[in-house]
Amino acid sequence: MRIMGIDPGTAITGFGLLEQEGSRLRLLEFGVIRTEPEVPDAERLLQIHREVGALLKNYRPDEIAIEELFFNKNSRSVLAVGQARGVVMLAAAQADLRVEEYTPLQVKMAVVGYGRAEKRQVQEMVKVLLGLARPPKPDDAADALAVAICHAHSRLKYNPHACRMRE
Amino acid sequence: MRIMGIDPGTAITGFGLLEQEGSRLRLLEFGVIRTEPEVPDAERLLQIHREVGALLKNYRPDEIAIEELFFNKNSRSVLAVGQARGVVMLAAAQADLRVEEYTPLQVKMAVVGYGRAEKRQVQEMVKVLLGLARPPKPDDAADALAVAICHAHSRLKYNPHACRMRE
Repeated sequence: MRIMGIDPGTAITGFGLLEQEGSRLRLLEFGVIRTEPEVPDAERLLQIHREVGALLKNYRPDEIAIEELFFNKNSRSVLAVGQARGVVMLAAAQADLRVEEYTPLQVKMAVVGYGRAEKRQVQEMVKVLLGLARPPKPDDAADALAVAICHAHSRLKYNPHACRMRE
Repeated sequence: MRIMGIDPGTAITGFGLLEQEGSRLRLLEFGVIRTEPEVPDAERLLQIHREVGALLKNYRPDEIAIEELFFNKNSRSVLAVGQARGVVMLAAAQADLRVEEYTPLQVKMAVVGYGRAEKRQVQEMVKVLLGLARPPKPDDAADALAVAICHAHSRLKYNPHACRMRE
């Protein structure tokens, strides 16, 4: 089972791909899509949509997970993130993939086991859970892997035949 | 010159198409794209993207105008509008069309000549300016026509060879 986590944003969209075998997780790939601020928004969305589409085609994930937004951000940044999320969700639907959304609380609970964990603790646990030498960089890629881990965890939880990941 | 105004939203996306000849405006078409609330967001975005793409292909507008959001809305609705805007802007970019954005203030100034105009006054003036028997319905279609009129107005303003629309 291949899971792709995506952390959408207009300037930088993180992605991370995991292979889940039973309760084991293996890192396949991670990275970011960057767009230039001087390019008009519609062009930046075109680039994000094209590159996410290419990732889905290359890596053929079985499922996609994205994080719900923190709602304490200002409206202008929420709108920009919404636009990027829109084209990411569209690319997933065009590839016949369902998108699962998780709240920041769910992601922190799944990755750190503590809902008020700091960003750095989440990144540290991503490193530990995936057996890496250091936390993945940039942060947007680590965030994408965190939501992919959360989805993997939640899949196991609802599958009575699988062991639970962190037991 | 064909101008399409679009008022994006996840549940209902309004559109309106105008033909501008010098300082004259002619209504060609208006309507809405509706999506079902029980359908997952990604599927709704897929439908909006597909239908906007079909409109652009059928009507071949030369330019696209959309309204910037009111930023006093709550974050959750801003995010949903952002997602719909994202796929609308993507469809425009895929059709090689530039998207012009206008603030609610600019739209009211262009259509009513008064920045604090009520929604109903805007709809009434859309009726008058386009020579209709009654304001276009639903409101989302009237809003889309209003931003198309605003764009037409602003094009004339910056073209020294054209007369200004409301003089």
